[in-house]
Amino acid sequence: MLLETLNWRYATKKMDPAKTVPEEKVTRILEAAQLAPTSSGLQPFEIFVITNPELRAKISAAAWGQTQIVDGSHLIVFAAWDNYTAERIDAVVDLHVTERGIPREMVTPYYENLKANYLARSEAVNAAHAAHQAYIAFGLALAQAAELEVDATPMEGFDPAQVDEILGLREKGLRSVTLMPLGYRATEGDWLLGMKKVRKPMAELVTRID
Amino acid sequence: MLLETLNWRYATKKMDPAKTVPEEKVTRILEAAQLAPTSSGLQPFEIFVITNPELRAKISAAAWGQTQIVDGSHLIVFAAWDNYTAERIDAVVDLHVTERGIPREMVTPYYENLKANYLARSEAVNAAHAAHQAYIAFGLALAQAAELEVDATPMEGFDPAQVDEILGLREKGLRSVTLMPLGYRATEGDWLLGMKKVRKPMAELVTRID
Repeated sequence: MLLETLNWRYATKKMDPAKTVPEEKVTRILEAAQLAPTSSGLQPFEIFVITNPELRAKISAAAWGQTQIVDGSHLIVFAAWDNYTAERIDAVVDLHVTERGIPREMVTPYYENLKANYLARSEAVNAAHAAHQAYIAFGLALAQAAELEVDATPMEGFDPAQVDEILGLREKGLRSVTLMPLGYRATEGDWLLGMKKVRKPMAELVTRID
Repeated sequence: MLLETLNWRYATKKMDPAKTVPEEKVTRILEAAQLAPTSSGLQPFEIFVITNPELRAKISAAAWGQTQIVDGSHLIVFAAWDNYTAERIDAVVDLHVTERGIPREMVTPYYENLKANYLARSEAVNAAHAAHQAYIAFGLALAQAAELEVDATPMEGFDPAQVDEILGLREKGLRSVTLMPLGYRATEGDWLLGMKKVRKPMAELVTRID
């Protein structure tokens, strides 16, 4: 059950460097991100899965030395499109037409309207919109990791410009949005392990209007 | 299993107005949003659950007439903080100190550093950061709805300024980010029902760096 899964997980502060997440589990975590709903089905992001130790050491240095990036076995980087373009949207239309075996004319008006809207917006607005979709996938990947009892740390605390540089993301029209080291919690050295999960009470978080 | 759940769900286009989601299920969906991880545990958003038909009709009008908002039984609105403030962050510190029974001095340096960082940033940067956290909760609430076989439609297609006005969000220091009508799919009239779910192939979405 998802609620049990979400209660199990926590932002692991110290990973055990001796343990490796099996590839089969990594694949399932990526599948959850792949299945995430995105605005108009555009999936405007890419995902980088890094095991390479040197590269992870560089990214850790760009993330104030957070050790989970090197002590975990895999680092997942979510990188969003830096803008919407006609080519990127057309590729999504192609995929839908092929996969659903529907006439192109069935979807053309919708996506032409979308292009008229999106391509008129600033790059900053579009990059922010794309990043939002990456956050949905990020959340679902975290939940999938937890369901498989894989520890993960959701991370925004890094210098995106440096990570973009390390991974060559700018040239690909991408911008790093979030990091997610995967691994297994160390039994010692994690101040957060065993701490009560704290959340705002429902009465504070939720307002009913009936 | 989460992957089955995500495969089951789709962005329902036509809800059955005769069916109502039980309150117990709505509560569980909200609990998933409550348990969502957020940056530094700030949970910088509020959630509005609206059953009131007049209010939902107004919001539907601000969302290009999307019928799920009125045909579903509940509308969930995710509204993010418009900015970080010392008061808002202090309230989170208070909650952590109380809930964990830890000395305030244990967490003060971390949150004072956070305040120094966040309060120096522009309102726009902080609002965007808060909205990101709402997207994580939004994705997990969608997954929780699907696990309970409740249909939901993730929606960004609405005029946030109008929804803010309708719900009086500005006065509360909030900005509407996403909508999520809850209900049950109609057996007829939904063009998307029965269509194959289309996602980019893994090879296109994911890059491995080993």
